[in-house]
Amino acid sequence: MNLPMTDEECRVAMAALSGQLDLYAKLLVNKGCALKEGQELMLTASLEQADFARRVVRAAYEAGAGHVTVNWYDDAVERMDLEYVPLEWFKTVPSWEVEQRDSLAEAGAAFLFLDGSDPDAMKGIDPAKPAARRKAMNTQCVKYRDGMDFGRNVWCIAAAPVLGWARQVFPKLSDAEAMYRLWVAILSVSRADGGDPESAWETHNASFEQTKRYLNDQRFDALHYVSSNGTDLTVGMNEGHIWDGGAARTVDGTSYFPNIPTEEVFTSPDRMRVDGIVHSALPLSNSGQLIKDFWFRFEGGQVVDFGAAEGADVLQHILDTDENSRRLGECALISKNTPIRQSGVLFYDTLFDENASCHLALGTGFPECLAGGVDMGKDTLMAHGVNQSATHVDFMIGSDDMNIWGISKDGTETPLFVNGQWAWE
Amino acid sequence: MNLPMTDEECRVAMAALSGQLDLYAKLLVNKGCALKEGQELMLTASLEQADFARRVVRAAYEAGAGHVTVNWYDDAVERMDLEYVPLEWFKTVPSWEVEQRDSLAEAGAAFLFLDGSDPDAMKGIDPAKPAARRKAMNTQCVKYRDGMDFGRNVWCIAAAPVLGWARQVFPKLSDAEAMYRLWVAILSVSRADGGDPESAWETHNASFEQTKRYLNDQRFDALHYVSSNGTDLTVGMNEGHIWDGGAARTVDGTSYFPNIPTEEVFTSPDRMRVDGIVHSALPLSNSGQLIKDFWFRFEGGQVVDFGAAEGADVLQHILDTDENSRRLGECALISKNTPIRQSGVLFYDTLFDENASCHLALGTGFPECLAGGVDMGKDTLMAHGVNQSATHVDFMIGSDDMNIWGISKDGTETPLFVNGQWAWE
Repeated sequence: MNLPMTDEECRVAMAALSGQLDLYAKLLVNKGCALKEGQELMLTASLEQADFARRVVRAAYEAGAGHVTVNWYDDAVERMDLEYVPLEWFKTVPSWEVEQRDSLAEAGAAFLFLDGSDPDAMKGIDPAKPAARRKAMNTQCVKYRDGMDFGRNVWCIAAAPVLGWARQVFPKLSDAEAMYRLWVAILSVSRADGGDPESAWETHNASFEQTKRYLNDQRFDALHYVSSNGTDLTVGMNEGHIWDGGAARTVDGTSYFPNIPTEEVFTSPDRMRVDGIVHSALPLSNSGQLIKDFWFRFEGGQVVDFGAAEGADVLQHILDTDENSRRLGECALISKNTPIRQSGVLFYDTLFDENASCHLALGTGFPECLAGGVDMGKDTLMAHGVNQSATHVDFMIGSDDMNIWGISKDGTETPLFVNGQWAWE
Repeated sequence: MNLPMTDEECRVAMAALSGQLDLYAKLLVNKGCALKEGQELMLTASLEQADFARRVVRAAYEAGAGHVTVNWYDDAVERMDLEYVPLEWFKTVPSWEVEQRDSLAEAGAAFLFLDGSDPDAMKGIDPAKPAARRKAMNTQCVKYRDGMDFGRNVWCIAAAPVLGWARQVFPKLSDAEAMYRLWVAILSVSRADGGDPESAWETHNASFEQTKRYLNDQRFDALHYVSSNGTDLTVGMNEGHIWDGGAARTVDGTSYFPNIPTEEVFTSPDRMRVDGIVHSALPLSNSGQLIKDFWFRFEGGQVVDFGAAEGADVLQHILDTDENSRRLGECALISKNTPIRQSGVLFYDTLFDENASCHLALGTGFPECLAGGVDMGKDTLMAHGVNQSATHVDFMIGSDDMNIWGISKDGTETPLFVNGQWAWE
């Protein structure tokens, strides 16, 4: 039986976690960002994450950071911006924000984002505004965006709790216990709960290498997804597609982890060959708004119909971002036997939930998922089937009974997933 | 007898203050910044001031702000920057920070600074680093600096508590009570504790108008300061000097309050005619470091010798900022009969302490304190006796027994201050 903790017990438990939080901060700096002597770091964090953000800043300086720029944000202020400021304003990124991101990218900075916000923080906000801002950020900060997309800048997304998020994940617990439990869950599924998280990630990465090698050797022409929830979808694979996952590599060979945690192997599918219907397996939290029980119908790579029990208008704005936001940029395979899925915690946060379930993403694809892709321009990538868009929105489709087959050029079908896990598990 | 408050009593008392904090936020936006429909606002605030900063953001949007940019800072992160990053780095303001301040200044933004930090936050830091940063900020963000100095941009400094500050001001109280008491003190001395702070400031401003009119009519050639602590200083007045105070005016006629609270009438003295010795009356908190019991000897307008019981090295860096940082830019008259002095609270913060005591400032002077000054370039201002420098550091000299005479061109001496207050009070 699990008795509720008193606030004092939570305080003591959090204090006991302090050393582990520092190990986690070091993991983000040393493995997530592979920070080098003299390198600049830009850390994006919420005001509520101040305590942990300070640990990251210290870890970065101890690792030799040249300078750390902390980009603080506050959901409450952001909500007021979105409430009071007209849509037009969000279509242009202020010149200084472009300069900040682009000049840091040019200086070779690493970008570390502390994920974590109340999934309902922006409930009721006109979704056109966050959509416009996201698009502006992705199209107007060119050196920043390309620096990360084309392997010139290291980046890492990892999480730290905030209260609104902890309440959503653990609605029955006190605030103090919900925060503590969310920390414990994050450290655990991020493989940062042991004495040497950095070694744990080296071990973790070795198993990625195995899976990627197998998938890349198969040269599948398509994947076929079937689930009892109605999903029956065929996703074409590009000639020269590459399955990626675990550590990423910059063009100069630095190995880093763009997502902590990560459990997925993924590639960018053929933007023109996606057909059938796919149903969501988990709700999607996007720009502080929840989308529930949704589905897409694809024809020739494009969403031609969709529906949602909740948040259909948010979905509409994602699909309308630009001419390619109705096509897929990613398909990712994750067994249900991962720490995140096994934790039984629904995080209401893409960073975690996408690593608990097979998923797809609408929008832009990854140059590194095509042979020679990082040296190609956007038009060439598109010509080779890798979608390019100002958005990238993951959504979870991996139901417990999902079966997936890899289909070879000659029509051979190889079982990849049986009932939600790798066929060989 | 004053019993200590329990934490629960403090919580209840703070909750009861909520409506007053919103009135104070509105005072800063509507009177401090005189914010106009569609105008941009840049708000600089510490993470610890988040609750009050959000109230200011809401007040600004309710007053019609076009957009509010919040510039969050964190003393703990700042201290790590200063500890780990070499001096050289601080000599250049990052291009994006220049762009932020200059582009907002060009767009006609108002700049609101929430003062409030632990006076000891940067204790032990090499003072050359904050000095270099301050100088860089004041010389490299040209449109921003000139926009405020030459009456094109509205700006306002006001305060909100942070814990390290509250502890210093009320060292014997619990954290919760110290924070509550500091809020009460700030609201009181800022004349924001009544039902209509905005009207209270109109009344307050009317008394400034009277004092300024008297002083400006006298056309003194010099002031002579004498105190039993050893102070015996003569400060020359420029031809065409103007006594200012209370509301300031932009070149387009907007009336605003650059400091809340403010009790001072001030002018910029003749940079070449300051002679004698002056002793500090209060400690000076500068860049998170304390300077205590200090004195300066002036000859021909310039500091030629100085000493301090504590913090002499910090003083040295202030004096060495540039070739004019050893000359005066301001002399300000404040009676000891002001709410701040009467509150008996030593705030360890220039914004308050300078309004409790006659003070001088090393460094740059004010164009608006010379007839025609706002239309002059820096060289012309200097030629007319108004000092120009990359720094401006106020220090308090108004001891309780200070006497001040105004000296006219013909040698007539008019008593201005007797025992620390206006001669006619």
